[in-house]
Amino acid sequence: MHVPVQAIDREIWRNGVASEGTRLIPEETPLALTYNGGTYAVMMGTPQNLEDFAVGFSLSEGIVGSVDDIRSLEIVRLDDGIELRMWLAPDEAARISERRRHIAGPTGCGICGIESIAEAVRPAAVVPHGQTFTPEQIMTAMQAIAPLQSINMQTRAVHAAAFWSPAGNIVALREDVGRHNALDKLAGALARSRTDARGGMVLLTSRVSVEMVQKTAAIGAPLMVAVSAPTALAVRTAEAAGITLIAIARQDGFEVFTHGGRIVACHATEVADVA
Amino acid sequence: MHVPVQAIDREIWRNGVASEGTRLIPEETPLALTYNGGTYAVMMGTPQNLEDFAVGFSLSEGIVGSVDDIRSLEIVRLDDGIELRMWLAPDEAARISERRRHIAGPTGCGICGIESIAEAVRPAAVVPHGQTFTPEQIMTAMQAIAPLQSINMQTRAVHAAAFWSPAGNIVALREDVGRHNALDKLAGALARSRTDARGGMVLLTSRVSVEMVQKTAAIGAPLMVAVSAPTALAVRTAEAAGITLIAIARQDGFEVFTHGGRIVACHATEVADVA
Repeated sequence: MHVPVQAIDREIWRNGVASEGTRLIPEETPLALTYNGGTYAVMMGTPQNLEDFAVGFSLSEGIVGSVDDIRSLEIVRLDDGIELRMWLAPDEAARISERRRHIAGPTGCGICGIESIAEAVRPAAVVPHGQTFTPEQIMTAMQAIAPLQSINMQTRAVHAAAFWSPAGNIVALREDVGRHNALDKLAGALARSRTDARGGMVLLTSRVSVEMVQKTAAIGAPLMVAVSAPTALAVRTAEAAGITLIAIARQDGFEVFTHGGRIVACHATEVADVA
Repeated sequence: MHVPVQAIDREIWRNGVASEGTRLIPEETPLALTYNGGTYAVMMGTPQNLEDFAVGFSLSEGIVGSVDDIRSLEIVRLDDGIELRMWLAPDEAARISERRRHIAGPTGCGICGIESIAEAVRPAAVVPHGQTFTPEQIMTAMQAIAPLQSINMQTRAVHAAAFWSPAGNIVALREDVGRHNALDKLAGALARSRTDARGGMVLLTSRVSVEMVQKTAAIGAPLMVAVSAPTALAVRTAEAAGITLIAIARQDGFEVFTHGGRIVACHATEVADVA
C-alpha cells in the first residue's frame, strides 16, 4: 500500500502454454488531501513524491497561490491509504470552506449545469511569448526521459511528466499511474525548488487532455511535448493560453498543434515576433 | 465541441522535414451530470453515447440502484459543454442532497482523511462463482473488439470498453478519451438494454485501476480482460470481489492475476469448484 512497486504472482498463458511467475506492477493508493482538518479530495495515485503531489495539486486546483501559503504539510500513513495533511493560514482556509459550500451548492438552482461547466473550462493563465526552441532540443529532451523513469522501467505501466530547463537538461521527472497526478507532482517539485518554468518545456509520456494544458499553463511553461495525441479541447485551450502544444513525439519527429512560431530550425537569440 | 472527432490542421516535423496537414483527434467535452437541478459532477468526456454515460455513471457512483430510478434524462447542449439533466424520485433526490452535504462536510473534523479514504475504497460487490471460460474464448473476444472501435480507428487516441456475452459475441462496445468513462458508458448500455452481465466478460483496451474493478463488480461480470497492466490495488480489489482479472492480453496470450479457476483449458459444462 505504501511502496510504489509490488511483486505479484500470476499465471501466464502464452502461445498455448500455461506457466507461473512474478510480475512487478505499480501500486495505487487512496491519497486524501486535507486542508485544516477537512478533506478536499481523495485521489488514487502512486505513493511516491507525496510532498510534491500535495503542493502541486494545491497549486493546480487554485487552492493556494504559492507554496508559501501551505503552513505545514504532514504525510500520514493510514491502513487503507495516505493522508496529505495540510494547514493553511486562516484566510486561505476560509476560501476553501467557501469553495466547498459552492461544490455542495443549492439543489434545484436551475443553472448549475452552466455554472459548473464554466468553472471546469475556466481560461488557463496566458503564457508570455519570446522563448524559442529548436527541433533538436525537443527531440533530445524527449529522448532523455526514458532512462529516468525508474518505476516505469520496472512495471511498463506508469506515466511520467518531466521539466527540461533552458540550461539543456531534465531538472525534474515524476511518475504516477495517473498522468494528471504525474504532472501535479512535477508542478509541486518545481514550486518547492523555486524553479522558474518560463523558459523550459513540460514533457509528457501520455496523451494530452484539457487539464494537462491547464496545469502546464499554471506551471508557466511556454511549450509542452507529449508522446501521444491531444484532444480537440486541449488544442483549443493551448491556443488560447499561448502554449506551444507538440504531440505524437516519436523517434522520427513530432507534430505541432499550436503556436508553432516558437519552433525555429536555426536558433536565433533575438526573435522579433514568434507567434 | 459536440461531435466526437475533429479534424485539426497541424505542422509535422518528421525526419528533419517540415510539412503541413490535417489530423483527426478526439473531442473532449465538459459533461455536467445534474440531478433534480443540482450539479453532482463535471466529467471531461467524448460526446457520444451520452445517455449510456449518464445512466452508467449514476449506477457506478451508487446514485441510483437501477436504471428505473431515473425518471427522466435530457441531453442539453450548451455553448461550452453538455448537461446530462436527470430527474429522480424525491426520496432518491434527498439521498443525493445528503451525499452532497457529506462531500462538503464539516471543516476541522479531524478524522476526515480516514473517513474519505474508507469511502473511496469501499468493498466492491462480490460476483458469484460458477461460470467458466476457455483461453480460446478470451483470445477470440479480445480480437473482436478492434474492428468495432470506430473513433479509435480514426484517431488512435481513445479507449474502449466492451461486453462479450456467453452467446459468443460482443453485444456492446463504447469509446471515450477516458477509460473510466468508456466503462461507465458500457455499464449504462448494458443497464438500458437489460443485459444480464453475470455470464460474460468485460473487455478493456486500457490499464486496470481500482475503479475499473469496482465498476466491473457493479456491472456484475465475473471476468475482466485488459490489454495493459493492473495496479496492485486493482488486483487486491478483484481478489476480494471474486472477479477473475486478466491483463497484458496480447496477440500471443494473457496473464491471470486473480481467480484463475474460472479459466479451463477444456470447457466442461459442469464444474464442481471453480475458485
